[in-house]
Amino acid sequence: MTKHTASANIHWHNSVVTKQERQNLNGHKSCILWFTGLSGSGKSTLANALDKRLYEERINSFVLDGDNIRHGLNKDLGFKPEDRQENIRRIGEVSKLFVENGSIVLTAFVSPYRDDRQLARQMVDKEEFIEIYVQCPVEECEKRDPKGLYKKARKGEIPEFTGISAPYEEPVDPEITISSDRVSIEQSVEQIIGYLKDKGIIR
Amino acid sequence: MTKHTASANIHWHNSVVTKQERQNLNGHKSCILWFTGLSGSGKSTLANALDKRLYEERINSFVLDGDNIRHGLNKDLGFKPEDRQENIRRIGEVSKLFVENGSIVLTAFVSPYRDDRQLARQMVDKEEFIEIYVQCPVEECEKRDPKGLYKKARKGEIPEFTGISAPYEEPVDPEITISSDRVSIEQSVEQIIGYLKDKGIIR
Repeated sequence: MTKHTASANIHWHNSVVTKQERQNLNGHKSCILWFTGLSGSGKSTLANALDKRLYEERINSFVLDGDNIRHGLNKDLGFKPEDRQENIRRIGEVSKLFVENGSIVLTAFVSPYRDDRQLARQMVDKEEFIEIYVQCPVEECEKRDPKGLYKKARKGEIPEFTGISAPYEEPVDPEITISSDRVSIEQSVEQIIGYLKDKGIIR
Repeated sequence: MTKHTASANIHWHNSVVTKQERQNLNGHKSCILWFTGLSGSGKSTLANALDKRLYEERINSFVLDGDNIRHGLNKDLGFKPEDRQENIRRIGEVSKLFVENGSIVLTAFVSPYRDDRQLARQMVDKEEFIEIYVQCPVEECEKRDPKGLYKKARKGEIPEFTGISAPYEEPVDPEITISSDRVSIEQSVEQIIGYLKDKGIIR
């Protein structure tokens, strides 16, 4: 029987599996694909379509979006500015854990403020954060209104609704821009896949 | 060019990759291995040793512990009871995301309260939560004192220190118990690997 001592503990702690080793096991690098854009711009749709495509290429990827975050980890948060900021901070921290695990994590949140996105960007290495601006005129988003939120916002039922009664700060220099009113989902997926291959993140 | 419509969005949303599909890709099931026990009992040491072993078997696993949670996601939390509870809640929610991603996630936190562990247990399916009680007499933990925390607690520098000035509620019916003062790390790892194989979680 081995006696545990403090030094034995330190020895074991030194043998943790590194991010690099996990990436080698997966056969690809890990990163955050940070989708940002107005409600209805197609972030979640595009993220899930890309996730499916990555899955088919046997890549370890995962989508964080309102469905699995707002009802779970962040269910204690509302929509006032400090809560929005904390929402994005936690999403950034969870994304970082997935990057450590060797995954390509796709986050699909409006994330309207530049400072908050910048905060998330700084949590990981430079080449690990890829901001994807899903650009779409607010008129088109409102026409789509897949969740009926614009209708509610116009009635005043949702205060501080991004694009209507609260600002959306466009990315200044996003790694990728998708014009979702002009380009199909299929083409958008290919554009992002091409970027990931160019950067050597996937093969 | 494809026009996006609300119905097209719904179509795409329906094609999300399921947990089952991710497990199939990985070649094993996903679950939470929830290590609980006193400070110094060897939770983190054991979790990292097991993680290394799983990695060597090409299994997608990941350790959540103080190192990557307290300084990141939960750095806004202290050690008062409501913060401890929120700490465990968030760890449970993040673990659930890793389970959705098809990973075996190992959590190594004192998690002294039964109710909090029960809360985490209820976040996932019954067979996906495996509580591992790392049992060790407090006298032995204090002798090891790898982080010097017992010394500080005895001096009164850490208020409400589990096992000294705050309670540790032992698991009533944990899936696995490890007596870390009597069994080596290597043997403990084998015990857990055996359990995972018995349950069909790994092959």
